[in-house]
Amino acid sequence: MSEHTVDAVCIIGTGLIGGSLALALRQAGFCREIIGAGRTEETLIKAAELGVIDRYDTHIPGAVEHADIVVVCVPLGAMRAVFEQIDAGRNEHTIVTDAGSAKQSVIDDAHAVFGSDLQYFVAGHPIAGTEQSGVGAAFPELYQQRRVILTPTEETNTDALDRVRTMWQAAGAVVETMSAEHHDLVLAGTSHLPHLLAFGLVDCLNNLEDIDEIFRFAAGGFRDFTRIASSDPIMWRDICLSNRVQVMAMMKRYRDEMVKVYRALEDNDGEKLKEVFERAKRVRDAFCG
Amino acid sequence: MSEHTVDAVCIIGTGLIGGSLALALRQAGFCREIIGAGRTEETLIKAAELGVIDRYDTHIPGAVEHADIVVVCVPLGAMRAVFEQIDAGRNEHTIVTDAGSAKQSVIDDAHAVFGSDLQYFVAGHPIAGTEQSGVGAAFPELYQQRRVILTPTEETNTDALDRVRTMWQAAGAVVETMSAEHHDLVLAGTSHLPHLLAFGLVDCLNNLEDIDEIFRFAAGGFRDFTRIASSDPIMWRDICLSNRVQVMAMMKRYRDEMVKVYRALEDNDGEKLKEVFERAKRVRDAFCG
Repeated sequence: MSEHTVDAVCIIGTGLIGGSLALALRQAGFCREIIGAGRTEETLIKAAELGVIDRYDTHIPGAVEHADIVVVCVPLGAMRAVFEQIDAGRNEHTIVTDAGSAKQSVIDDAHAVFGSDLQYFVAGHPIAGTEQSGVGAAFPELYQQRRVILTPTEETNTDALDRVRTMWQAAGAVVETMSAEHHDLVLAGTSHLPHLLAFGLVDCLNNLEDIDEIFRFAAGGFRDFTRIASSDPIMWRDICLSNRVQVMAMMKRYRDEMVKVYRALEDNDGEKLKEVFERAKRVRDAFCG
Repeated sequence: MSEHTVDAVCIIGTGLIGGSLALALRQAGFCREIIGAGRTEETLIKAAELGVIDRYDTHIPGAVEHADIVVVCVPLGAMRAVFEQIDAGRNEHTIVTDAGSAKQSVIDDAHAVFGSDLQYFVAGHPIAGTEQSGVGAAFPELYQQRRVILTPTEETNTDALDRVRTMWQAAGAVVETMSAEHHDLVLAGTSHLPHLLAFGLVDCLNNLEDIDEIFRFAAGGFRDFTRIASSDPIMWRDICLSNRVQVMAMMKRYRDEMVKVYRALEDNDGEKLKEVFERAKRVRDAFCG
């Protein structure tokens, strides 16, 4: 009997998300060994040098062969291809989970690759991260007190779900479960739409003349507001496409809201504006205060 | 000869902006005396107790009577009424300046009250502030290294402009001048539109079911993005109305941008999305990095 909860965890994609999970699990003594895997050997060498992983394998089927849990931390657009490589190396009890920001698309990808055998697949999403990326930005406290949402399906094996829950708890996270559909709606509103709005604002201002001057006069509020526009473009392209139905629905809602605000301005309707602003301030202060 | 640059400064409206200016000028020894004025005696008493002002007068004509410089730090909607009271107490060389976030509307208000005698009126805008408000939030370092934009007109007296510039420099700010029109365009993009977008987002999400849950899953990025939605609703109603022409033009530009993004989602056009996100990230990293 080992003192560890599981023997080996394989983390595919050792960037900020995967690397921080590895560091947290190591600190917690959750497993005997952490195996890194991924496309780019340079990243894996760096992860090993930084002590984030114990060893690595660029051949994914080989890397997952002896792992109890495989955590896929790659952009959503790469999920399906990685699942195919996992499928070539996994055994029937290998638990596979992921850290993608949209969940229905990942479940669809898993379905397409693992067929109806989804018992040991547990879709998950840690609500954590910074606008930084890469293994150099990884740190073991990233998940402390952060929420991780798991979105099991009817087919999910209860033990597999418990294992993945225990893993995230070992990393310091608070784990909750909900349906993939509900997850995708909630995240479209609180994360995907805001990112689109921030990217769109900076791009829109970039088309103005005197752009240098415009940013020179930007105050702290602008910096905070646009911080998420410094996020990784590939990752966000994938998230938006993966959750496009919910994101488009949320954009429509938002457009209707902004049409209302525009009309209030057009009508010089200070009461209407004040009403919107007061309601927003009250809600934000209550939840984020 | 006194060791001070001017004898008395009167600050009308001793909230975060006016109070912080008073504290900074006092620390710099810019004037012998700072007189607070405003509508609410309770605020003035508190400002005096906190050592922000030397004395106060709720009667504005009396408060400005012996002041060399009068700084109006009230919401834009109250400017004209305050100018009328200043006009009843000022002498021909009293310099009047303001700290409003829109400039053409303030110049129009000054014109309406002071007539063609605008020599000693200098419109100004310190690009500083937090989502906090009130004299209790005031601190002397607020303007350190922050930009203050002055928007003189053809009528502005050069000495009056220099005096106001010297005052803000004494408070630690970097002072620049530009036309009111240009100021209003730049601020519409970097401040007024972002505030509207943030207020609008929180209000839009507030209309969804399960609102509690939605905010419960909001991550750090959402908190940063919506921080400005905790700003003062009255102040922002006034800013948006005062600068409505430029704000509406900026909202239209933004709508066009978001229509482009929506179409890319609709067409599953990852290349287009990536292009927008990459451009935005590059621009933001360059200016705010």
